[in-house]
This record gives sequence, structure tokens and C-alpha cells, in this order.
Amino acid sequence: MSLYRTLFYQPDVNALYSDEATVAYMLWAESALARAQALHGLIPGWAADAIAASCNSQLIDINQLVNTIPLGANACIPLVKQLTTLVEKQSPEASPYIHFGATSQDIIDTATMLQSRDAVLFIQKDLHRLIAQLTALAVEHDQTPMVGRTLLQQAKPITFGFKVRTWLDGLGRSSSRLENLFSETFALQLGGAVGDLKSMGSAGPAIAQTMADDLGLYNPTMAWHTQRDRIADIAAKLGILVGAVAKIATDISLMMQTEVGEVLEPAGAGKGGSSAMPHKRNPVSSVAIRAIAGRTPNLVATLFGCLMQDHERASGAWHAEWEPLAELIQLTAGAVHQAVVMTDGLVVNVEQMRKNLDATNGLLFAENVALALAPKIGKSQATAFIETACWESQQAGQHLNVYLSNQPLIQQHFTPGELATLFDPTR
Amino acid sequence: MSLYRTLFYQPDVNALYSDEATVAYMLWAESALARAQALHGLIPGWAADAIAASCNSQLIDINQLVNTIPLGANACIPLVKQLTTLVEKQSPEASPYIHFGATSQDIIDTATMLQSRDAVLFIQKDLHRLIAQLTALAVEHDQTPMVGRTLLQQAKPITFGFKVRTWLDGLGRSSSRLENLFSETFALQLGGAVGDLKSMGSAGPAIAQTMADDLGLYNPTMAWHTQRDRIADIAAKLGILVGAVAKIATDISLMMQTEVGEVLEPAGAGKGGSSAMPHKRNPVSSVAIRAIAGRTPNLVATLFGCLMQDHERASGAWHAEWEPLAELIQLTAGAVHQAVVMTDGLVVNVEQMRKNLDATNGLLFAENVALALAPKIGKSQATAFIETACWESQQAGQHLNVYLSNQPLIQQHFTPGELATLFDPTR
Amino acid sequence: MSLYRTLFYQPDVNALYSDEATVAYMLWAESALARAQALHGLIPGWAADAIAASCNSQLIDINQLVNTIPLGANACIPLVKQLTTLVEKQSPEASPYIHFGATSQDIIDTATMLQSRDAVLFIQKDLHRLIAQLTALAVEHDQTPMVGRTLLQQAKPITFGFKVRTWLDGLGRSSSRLENLFSETFALQLGGAVGDLKSMGSAGPAIAQTMADDLGLYNPTMAWHTQRDRIADIAAKLGILVGAVAKIATDISLMMQTEVGEVLEPAGAGKGGSSAMPHKRNPVSSVAIRAIAGRTPNLVATLFGCLMQDHERASGAWHAEWEPLAELIQLTAGAVHQAVVMTDGLVVNVEQMRKNLDATNGLLFAENVALALAPKIGKSQATAFIETACWESQQAGQHLNVYLSNQPLIQQHFTPGELATLFDPTR
Amino acid sequence: MSLYRTLFYQPDVNALYSDEATVAYMLWAESALARAQALHGLIPGWAADAIAASCNSQLIDINQLVNTIPLGANACIPLVKQLTTLVEKQSPEASPYIHFGATSQDIIDTATMLQSRDAVLFIQKDLHRLIAQLTALAVEHDQTPMVGRTLLQQAKPITFGFKVRTWLDGLGRSSSRLENLFSETFALQLGGAVGDLKSMGSAGPAIAQTMADDLGLYNPTMAWHTQRDRIADIAAKLGILVGAVAKIATDISLMMQTEVGEVLEPAGAGKGGSSAMPHKRNPVSSVAIRAIAGRTPNLVATLFGCLMQDHERASGAWHAEWEPLAELIQLTAGAVHQAVVMTDGLVVNVEQMRKNLDATNGLLFAENVALALAPKIGKSQATAFIETACWESQQAGQHLNVYLSNQPLIQQHFTPGELATLFDPTR
Repeated sequence: MSLYRTLFYQPDVNALYSDEATVAYMLWAESALARAQALHGLIPGWAADAIAASCNSQLIDINQLVNTIPLGANACIPLVKQLTTLVEKQSPEASPYIHFGATSQDIIDTATMLQSRDAVLFIQKDLHRLIAQLTALAVEHDQTPMVGRTLLQQAKPITFGFKVRTWLDGLGRSSSRLENLFSETFALQLGGAVGDLKSMGSAGPAIAQTMADDLGLYNPTMAWHTQRDRIADIAAKLGILVGAVAKIATDISLMMQTEVGEVLEPAGAGKGGSSAMPHKRNPVSSVAIRAIAGRTPNLVATLFGCLMQDHERASGAWHAEWEPLAELIQLTAGAVHQAVVMTDGLVVNVEQMRKNLDATNGLLFAENVALALAPKIGKSQATAFIETACWESQQAGQHLNVYLSNQPLIQQHFTPGELATLFDPTR
Repeated sequence: MSLYRTLFYQPDVNALYSDEATVAYMLWAESALARAQALHGLIPGWAADAIAASCNSQLIDINQLVNTIPLGANACIPLVKQLTTLVEKQSPEASPYIHFGATSQDIIDTATMLQSRDAVLFIQKDLHRLIAQLTALAVEHDQTPMVGRTLLQQAKPITFGFKVRTWLDGLGRSSSRLENLFSETFALQLGGAVGDLKSMGSAGPAIAQTMADDLGLYNPTMAWHTQRDRIADIAAKLGILVGAVAKIATDISLMMQTEVGEVLEPAGAGKGGSSAMPHKRNPVSSVAIRAIAGRTPNLVATLFGCLMQDHERASGAWHAEWEPLAELIQLTAGAVHQAVVMTDGLVVNVEQMRKNLDATNGLLFAENVALALAPKIGKSQATAFIETACWESQQAGQHLNVYLSNQPLIQQHFTPGELATLFDPTR
Repeated sequence: MSLYRTLFYQPDVNALYSDEATVAYMLWAESALARAQALHGLIPGWAADAIAASCNSQLIDINQLVNTIPLGANACIPLVKQLTTLVEKQSPEASPYIHFGATSQDIIDTATMLQSRDAVLFIQKDLHRLIAQLTALAVEHDQTPMVGRTLLQQAKPITFGFKVRTWLDGLGRSSSRLENLFSETFALQLGGAVGDLKSMGSAGPAIAQTMADDLGLYNPTMAWHTQRDRIADIAAKLGILVGAVAKIATDISLMMQTEVGEVLEPAGAGKGGSSAMPHKRNPVSSVAIRAIAGRTPNLVATLFGCLMQDHERASGAWHAEWEPLAELIQLTAGAVHQAVVMTDGLVVNVEQMRKNLDATNGLLFAENVALALAPKIGKSQATAFIETACWESQQAGQHLNVYLSNQPLIQQHFTPGELATLFDPTR
Repeated sequence: MSLYRTLFYQPDVNALYSDEATVAYMLWAESALARAQALHGLIPGWAADAIAASCNSQLIDINQLVNTIPLGANACIPLVKQLTTLVEKQSPEASPYIHFGATSQDIIDTATMLQSRDAVLFIQKDLHRLIAQLTALAVEHDQTPMVGRTLLQQAKPITFGFKVRTWLDGLGRSSSRLENLFSETFALQLGGAVGDLKSMGSAGPAIAQTMADDLGLYNPTMAWHTQRDRIADIAAKLGILVGAVAKIATDISLMMQTEVGEVLEPAGAGKGGSSAMPHKRNPVSSVAIRAIAGRTPNLVATLFGCLMQDHERASGAWHAEWEPLAELIQLTAGAVHQAVVMTDGLVVNVEQMRKNLDATNGLLFAENVALALAPKIGKSQATAFIETACWESQQAGQHLNVYLSNQPLIQQHFTPGELATLFDPTR
């Protein structure tokens, strides 16, 4: 994690991904396994108690763990070694029951699911706050006229409330998608060396059910060691959420342009300053969000690329998931968090919004005229006439309304009052 | 579409993406719009009839259409121009009602949803056939022992039926995901120039509902011109499906290796030959699938990158979706189709599967011994002992069973009969 | 190739990728191989003549070729079959010498290099024209003041000529990178079945040299069947070029915003119109370029992902290159071509550029004041003072110059004349 | 940086990316700037001395720095603030000359180039060692026959030395590419707020030259604030290098398969063990490399996506580069380092390589027969005959040599001696 851990990330979620927290999730999985195995008689209860008592991340020598990971290419192997040493100190006869019949991937994947779930809970908290803030903003500005823009050109009037509601539309669906993760996607992993759970004998399925219930995870019908669609599904849902947030950031950064000036990110002490240009109010949160959104699609791609796994445990494609999934989750948390910051006290310049509606000398209302003219002279002719009118009035620096009022064709089909109505922004 | 349109693609789906078919989908949207607008009194019924009558892709000059697309950067603008000319020939007074109050994106997005839906219907057909074939294969081989492999190393025995069932597990979830697309994702687009549907007056919502019903699409609560999560959702679900299929292809291509020889892709006349090496049975379908899967994650990334859109119509991010979405859908169809071909008559070499179980001089059963030894001497010691035993027996070219039977530690804790049981592949 | 073949692509380059052209490149490689082999005595001269005579793409049944590609998963196998039939008709005894000792990949890769080279020649042509156009534009506007913008905020004055020169800076390096492709990257492929060229005996290296010379390709020290860095190198250089072009399109689309209005893409008959908004001058070329640039990074990623190939011919990673490389090249040609269109007659609104310099009530010159004040009162204090001044003057709707002239601190350190100089845009 | 910092990364390079090291690079740039400005008279020499004396990363409060980064969205703003406080303590009158006329991006980009360069120096060290190790391996095994494989099928004999030389071929070109980075790509950034270096007056170019010389960086003709091809160029060259290394890892992991058994990664104490399967020798280094290579193409894509920047400083696309570039460099270092580990003492099983040559009952030599037969009966017939022969002999479990010796066609055209020669692996 770089110097930018406060800019692109969210502190609560960062904390879930510290070395010690990551180890704690693995130990949580180990202890839940032992307890479930004891409940179903696969290992003695006293052994499970002894194992659970040693499943304490503060007892783990993280440096040694990190240094021994390259021996086996995953974090579980050396963790189980350290755990075994810890258990042997307290209760030597319990040690054979550690990680019993399990494989590294059972523990690592289960821990990843727990960690992902807890992170998503934090993301949801910020997302709900973001939705609440934007809902209030939409209500406040449902009657605030502003210009709608297509291909970065002024198109037709909308309201700012409508614009915010389109943001909410996307966020709402993303919020539902996150909810869905809890039902089947955050799943237990338990399959033993080759995924068939045979190493736990006939008690395997019951152990899995107990363990899943204990951890609050979904109990899948079979292990998913090399069926990674659940990981991809998490990735996709987060990636879409970041996109929805980045759309807002894009709009805000464009509306914050000096020449547009319709909104400002909320100011804080010293916020948005530039080292060289003291006067600038930089769109810092929207910049951070857009930077995140420049990265997340490719993290999604990496995780989708990992779907093509070999046999019963992949020779690289599993290992390639670990850091990108963590990064994607952490960046998503950062994006949503920055969106909360960006819109908590967003400064809306209603006056400037109205000013911008007048910027085109009436061209914004050209479609109104075209639509009204079409039934009278045919659509093609109406369109061609208005295209010419727009071009010529613009060249002449004339308001379109004025230009049109001098055109015989218009005089023939509209009264001055009818023409004026076509240029009324509140219609 | 390149020379490889038969290798990476599926002919029925390719046909949906021909120039004429793409135009037909847009005209379908235009005629549905006119009919719905007439039903709700926005335009005259006779005008809707005249428009619908001209919405015939065979009347469109495709070359002219293609050549005029760069004038406006989308296919709808010149299509409406041609349609207007066609309608004017038959019923000049109907022409003002063409594309009434709609925007190019309404038509193009709606057409894309129709086209995507029809393609997914074909994909589902092949997917269901694939699932049926693999289910039969799993049933046939539920008792066929083979070796399970982790990190490309032999690990422990499984059955081939189990392996196939893990494939089915992933495909089943992907099949459900495709089903879900029909409920909310394949949605109508209708919003007018800036997405607020104001150009259709108070009848707008009713027109949208009628149009959606007519086309069999979901009617969203509001237009989604720059909220593109539905496109990303389609992409994600297809990308995951390709991954599930590519996992199968990966396993098959590895099992087809000359030195492994456990399966063969079905032979056809001339199939799988090599220009330079006449004897080879190349894994042509699995190669094609893996090639597709090397491309789809990045198509997903492109579409996720398009989520960050500006204002009421994006200045590039919408246009960037068009070809990648089509390509992703067509490639997915190709992958699933090749998987059907690959597994329809897959040659399973049961004898070779058994032979490979014997390839390690008993090492495959080392874990059995370790697990049995652990309660007797402690887990750490048991693990260390077996690691040494594996290493030394391998160096000596000895079967692990034979090596162990000569070790005092083993003699002390196991009878010869107990030891033999630990090496029984059917346990 | 979709309906958008005129929007995202360039016709000359598209033509190089037609079915027949692609076949012609493969036949060119086959005939060059035969001629080189005859020259060095590996096959009879009359056989080479017969083969070369049949290497005519018009004699090939493309439909049959396409339909038989799935049998062997590449286009060379069925092409050699058809070629063999053709040669056998004319000179049966020549047929054993077709494709002699070569492998499909030799022909396909060599053809790809020829095709890529010819495409890059077209791209260079447009790139040189683009550079010439922009150079003229820079010269014309070297003294045209406009505002420089950072993070979408007005920052300090620059000239439009300077801005164009930054564009040229990037294009120049990309142009050099394309040049470099010709020296080592566009390389012959010749290795036979497993890449060691043993199938051509001792004449192998001499044949390769002759064939490379004949085709105008670089003759590498060894075959590169599974060393694909040259493909990745082409991809990277094209991807960077598209980025350089998209940077220009981004600037132009932002400068074309209604509220900014500093440039306009050149108008053509009907160009830039919108179906719903007849008045709009849409940035159609910049939109097309930005859409392309939304796709090319992921095509580069796909090709980089193909570097991880297995053994002596990859089981999918080679096949995954084919279409993405073609697409990347064709899209690059389209991007550069659209950039030529976009800047050939770019309308520069010098007056609006000046107007925008005045938009901030003097804030643009705040740094000048800060820099002048720092030596007098310390940098921190100067910065803090100016930040406050900017904020307060903006709140008061006052020009910064006026605000400052009333501040005692300023009066103390600057004469009115000195203050005025700090606000002079031409300094 | 996760628990996997020892698996996917290289410690020396990790150290260059610690918080303090990153700050130190920025301070190095600040002090070089001050010194160069003093040399050319822009700021007083004593001020430069005072600034340089405070440019010490150990004096920086990293936590405070990290916590204030979100105010301005980059690390330079708060660093300059802290530096100003430090300088003011020692020499208040020097503080106005800190960061004089520079912009955050000048410092951050220059620091990034210094950091990248130092990292590449470490990467080169490992790469040269890797090349040396592989060269020795190639020399040792230039006469060691093994099977060449295409599409994962046995194709024809090669030598292991040849295979290693193909690896070296790719590595050699990547090594040259890294060399090229030093000449123009590792470049100084100096342009001031909007990139035109005007804030340093007429001394600007001379200051840039001195600063570049001092830091050992290339002095570009102009600032490249939004021309990011150099960043993309670094990314591309590293991405290609990882691909070349991953190709080796792929081959080794395939050759290490239990059923192939041709090489083993070197063993260390406890290395390659599995938590559940004590007997396994896992391909840990190749797995780590392949995992890295599953991530790097998308990091390249992210950096290529950042080329599309807006105006004089990008509103997100610059910020999106920071962490992915660091990650890509660090992962590349890890990949090359793991490749050194993987091949330093690679165990080559020459005997097993020979055994595998005999695995196909002679099919490996089918092409020899086809080539010899073609001039006698025509190529098509020869090919068809051999295809049938391969198929039938395989079905019959017969060695191809034996099968052929019983075929009249073969008896007619070859003596038994001639036939035997065609099956000689040393030919």
C-alpha cells in the first residue's frame, strides 16, 4: 500500500487487509473447521478447543510467515506450521487434528470470502450514505433547470434533480447487486486436497454445513477450488459499482470546469489547493474516483482471466487472484468513500446553471421548432431548414429566436406568441 | 469478421450480426416506437402504419448507410434519413412522425438489447446441450478412477465423473446467470434527446410500456443512456460463462497431452490434423476455446471501462461499446459451440487413467500414510517423516509402499495389512 | 467488420484484411518459400515455378477454406490442401514440394508480418499528414494566447501553438517508434514443425535469408514460434500511437464544449448533425477516436497475455493473437485517419480563447502575485494570503486585481503599476 | 503490499518503494531543482543550500504527509508544505525559493523516473544472472534429445539446449529493450504549472539541462505532463519481459508434470511442499511467475489507458498511473527474481526426456516418412497414407515402424534400412 492509502482507499477497509487481519481471517477459518469437525465427531472436542485457543493472530510471527511463504507459494502452509508449533506447546496430542483433511485452498478461500464480506459491509455503509445524500440533493433540485449535454454539447434543458436521479438509478441497481453477494456468492470453501471432501469421510457434508453456518457463509453444493465464478462475480459487481460512482465524478468534474462552473466539490481547510496555483479549487475527490475507475476494469479483467484454471488446483491462476481481488475491493471502498466526501455539501450554483442555458443564443430550443415545423412542411424539410437556421444565426451572432422571427417560412406557420412559447425553458 | 468466423464463432449468432440483421433490429425498434406512439395517440395510426411498412431492411441501401455513418458517428442518423425518404415516397405526410421525439441512442440501444437477447437464446441452446452431454458423461464415469492434480502435480485419486461434475457446477451457475438477463437486463431504451422522455409528453411512460411489451423487453423506470450497468452485466455474465467453458477446455487439452493420454477430442474426417505432422490429433476445439478465453476478459474490461460516461450522452464511451459487445457475444457463442463439439463423443481412455494412477510409485498415497501416522507420532513429525520417505523412495526408484514397509517406524505402528489398505486406490 | 467500418477504420487498411487479401499474403509466403528453396537446391526450380504459378488468391475457394478451418484450427492447413489440388492439376509431380518442410505457423506468421507492415505503411502516410497539418497549425498559432488547464480548471495562460506542439511532441516519438518496426520487428517466420529449421537441412538458414530478402522482412537469428515479443512490440507501438492521437481528440472535444467554444471540428455537408438536435455540431471525429482509444489498451493487453506460450507451438495463445492484432492495427489506422479529418480545417476561435482568459476575474494571475509576494513576506504567508484573496474576491464577485489593490499588504509591497504588470496576459 | 511480498516481489526493489524511499526520491528532485536554479542564478545559492539541507526523508512526518494527501490529491503538495516548515526553521528567508516555479507533477514525475530507473537496474542484475544461468544450461544440453511439442502434442525431436536457446532469444531482446530505457525514456520532468517552463524565465532550459545531468536522466525537448508515452513505453518493455519469463515458467511447469517428469525446480529445505500432500514437489517458482504474468498485461493496459489525458494536467489519468506503474515494476522484479531461483540448479532428467521420445510408438517420426514418401507418390497421397497409418497403428497398439514395414506401399518404395533411418532420433 503506497503513500496514497488515504486518497484511493478507505481506512476501515484498509484495516481488514493488514497482515495481521489477513492472518486472523485464516485462523478464523481454521478454528471454525476444528470446531465443526469436533461437533461431528471427526476430531476430539478437546483437540478442537486446543486448536481454537491457539488460533490467535497475535501469536503468529508475521515476519517468519512472510519469509516462508515462497517455500510453498501460499500463506496457509507456513501458517499451519506455526499453528502446529503453538498447539504442540499447549497440547501436543491435539496437533494431528489441526487443518485435518483440509487443504490450503480451503482455508485461504474461506478467509478471502470472510474478508471480502466484511469489506463489502463497509462499502455498503458508505454506499447507503451516498444514496441518502444524493436523494436529498435530487429532491432539493427537482425544479432546478440546467442544460442537458450530449457528446459534450448543449442539447436540451433538464433539471439538476433529474440528473442526480439518473445517478441514483445506477447506484440503486449496484446496491441490489451487492445485496445479492450475501446469498450465494460469499461461500465456504471446503473440499480437501482434490476437492471431493473425501478426506473427512461421511461427516464431510455435515461439517461443511456447520462451518458455513458458524461463519455466516453460504454452503455450496460442492467445493469450488477451480470453479472461480464467485470470485469473478464479486469482481464484476464491484467493478460496476465503481463505474456508477465514476460516472458521477465525471459529471461533477465537467460541471466544475472553470467555464461551466455549475458545482464545486465541498471545500475543507486547505482542500483542493494546488502547489503552484493557489487560486484553484481542484476537483480532488472526483479526480481520485476517476483515477480508481481507470484501474478497476483491468482488475476485473485479471480476475476474469483467472477463470481458466487447470485440474483440481490451478498452477498460477489461483495465485494471480489474491492481490488483485484485495486491491479491487479496497479501491472500490475508496471510490465510494470519496463519492460520499465529494457530494457531502456539494456546492450547487443554480444561477450559473441558468446562465449556461442561455449560452447558445437560442440554439438549445432548435429541436422544439423543428418538431413543431415538421407536421407543417414535412420532417426532412423541417430538419434541413432548422440546420440552416442554426448555422446562419450562429454565424450572424443572432439569437435563433430573432433570426427565425424574420424568416417568411416561420411567419407563415407560427404567430409571434407561438414562436415565443417554443423558446420557453420551463415548458 | 475474419477468415476464422467458423472457428471462433457460431453461425446462427454470426447471422444476427450481419449488416442487414443489425439494420433490421434498428428498424424493428423504429416500427415498435411508431406503433406504440399511435396506440397512445401521440402520432396518427395511419402514420405509424406507413412507417412500419417501410421498416424493412431489404429496402435500405446498406452501402450508402455505411458511407454516411461518419457524418454523425452513429448508424441511426443515416438510417432515419433513408427511412424518411422511403416513407415520403409512400406517404409524405407520415414522415414527420418517424423517430418522433426519439434519439439515436433510443433506437440503437433498444436494437442492441434485442440482438443480444436473440444471441443469448442461441447461446442457451448450445449451453443446455453441453450440460446434457456432460451430465451423461458424469453419470457414465462416476466410478471411473483417475488422478486428481493440483499445481499440475498428481495429488490424490478422484473419479472422472467427479471432475465432470465440477465442470457442471460452474456451468449450472452460468446458466442461471443467463436466465437472469431476461428479467431486468434486456431492457428497452427510450428517453429522447436528454433521457427524460419529455419529448413524448405525458404519454411517454405508457408508450415505453407498450413498446417494451411489444418487443419483449424489460421496461426500466427511466432511460439509461449513460447508466450502462446493464451492458456491463451482460458482459460479465458472458465473460464468466466463457471462463467456465475454458476451464473444461484447459483440462481436456492437458488430459490430451501425449504423455497423459486420458481423453481425445472426437475425431471427424480430417479433424485435428497438422499440416506438418500427419500423426497428431490436435485438441482443435479446446485450442479454439482457450484462444477465445484469452480475449474475452479484456472485452469485458473494455465494456467496464465504458461505464464512466459523461453527462446525458457520452462523447466516446458509448460508441466504444458497440463492437466489443458484439464481439464478446459472438465469441461466447463460439466458445459454447466448440465445447459442444469438443465433448460430443469425447473419447475417454479409462485404461490410461488407471495407468496414470500408478505413475508415482505410490507417492499418490503418501497423504493417507501421513494422516494415519499423525495421531500416533504427532502431526509435525508425521509430515516430516513422510516428506523424507517420499524423497528417498523416489531417489531410490522404489515404490513408497515397499520403502515404508522397511522402515522401523512404520513397522512399529502398522501391520503389513494396514499399510496395504492405505495404498488401495478404491478406498 | 460491423456497420461502423467507415467510422472506426480506414478503407485502405480494411482492404488489406479482406478474406482474399489475407489469403493472398499467405500465398505470397508460400511462393517465396518455394522460390527460395529452389534457389538453394532444396526443391526443383520447375516445382517452385509451378507452385508460384498457383499461388493466386483468386483461384482459392474462400468459402471452402473458411468451412474447413475448424478441422485444424488454422487457415494454412486447408489453404495448403487447396493449393495442392491446384498444383496437382497443372503439375502433379510438383505437389510434394509445396510447403516443403514448413509448418502452418511459418506461413501464417510471415503473412501476418507482411500484412502488418503494409498496414503500418498506410498508417505512416496518414500520420505524416497529421504531423504536417498540426505543424502548420502550431506555426499559425504560436502567438495565440489561450488558457492552460490542469485538472479541468483554468491554470495559467499558454498559447494554442504551444498546446499543439505538445501534441506534436508525442506524435513525433510515435512516428519514430513506427519506423523502428521495420528494422527488426517485421520479421520472417521460418522454423518448420518445431522451430529448429532442421526439416530444410543445411540449406535452411540460406533459404530463410533469401526468403526474408525477397519479402523485405528482417531475417531473425532463429524462429520465434513461441517467442512473441515482436507481436507485443507492434501492439505496444500502435497502442501508444492511438493514445497520442486520443489525447488530441480529448483536448479538442473539451475545447468544443458549448461553454468553451475554442475550436470546432471542420464541417462537411451534413457532418456533425444529430438526429434529435439539428443545431448541434457534434465532435464526431474526436468521439470516434476516443471510442477507439477506449478499446485499444485492452487489445494490447490481450496480445501481451499471449506472450505466455507453451512449448514449441502454443495451445491457444497463438490463436488468440490473430483477430486482436488485426483489429488493433485496423483501429489504429482508423484513429490516425480520423485525426487527419478532425484537424484538416480545424476551426480555431481565437476570440473565444481570449474571452476565456478573462473568465475568472483575474484568478488566473494569482500565481504571479504569489511568486512576486513570496520573496517579500515568505512563501507560506504569501501562499496563504493569496488563497484567501482568491476565495474572498470570488465570493464578492470582484476582479482579483481590484480586490488586491485595496489590500494594505499589497499596497505596502507593490505600486499600482507593478500590480498591473502581474495581470498582463502577454507577460 | 500483502503477505505475498516475498513471493511475487523482490526485496531490493520493494525497498525502493517504501514510504520513506518514495519521499526521498521526491526530495532528491526538489534539491536537484534548487541546486540547478542556483547555478543559473534563478535563486540564491544560500537558499539552495538551505533547501538541499532540509531535503532529508528522515525529517518528514510520513503519517502527516499521508493524512494530508487527500486535500490536494497528490503527495507533493503536503511534502512541499512540510519542507517549507523545515526550511523556515533553519533559514526563513530561503523558504520562498522552495519548489520555485515548479509544479507538483514536475517533482512526482521526476521522482518516478528516478525510482523506476533504480528498480530497472536491479531487474537487469537478475536478468543478466538469469541469462547466464540459462546460457550454461543450453551449452550443457545442446545434445540432449527431447521431444518438441506443439499444441501440447508430441511433434518432433528437438534438444533441450535448443529449447533453452529459444528462451534466451526472447530474453535477449527484452534485455536490449531495458537498455534502451536509459537513453530517452527515463526523462526529467520540468515544465512548471502548465508545462511551458515560463515560470523559470529564460534560464528554464539551462536549469532543466543541469538538473537532468545531475540526476542522470534524459533531458527532453519539452515537458511531458500530458504526453505519457514514456510511461507506456516502460510498461510495455516490462510487460514483454514478464511474458518472456512466463513462457519459461510455463514450459517448466508443464515439463514438471508428474506424467512428463523432465525437469524439477531446485529443491530447498521445505520448498515445494504441500500442506495436504507431503510428497509433492510443487512448481512454486513457476506458479509464482505465472501468477504474476496473469496480472501484468492488465497493468500495462491500465497505463496505456492513461495516455488519453486532458489539457495541461489530467483530471485522473495521471493519478491512475501511480500505483499500477509501481506495481508493474515490482512484479516484474519478482518475476525475474523467481526465474533466477527456478533455474538456479534446475534438475534436468535426461533419461526421462529420452523415455518420452519413445512414448508414441513411433508416431513422432511419421513426418519423416511422409516427407520421404511424398516425392514418390505425391504429397496428398503420402499425407493421407500416413494419417491412416498413424491411426491404425495406434489403434492396434503397434509401433509405427512395425506397422509400416508390413505395408506393401512402404515395401515398394523403401528398403528396411531406409525405413529404419527414418526412425532414428539422432538424425
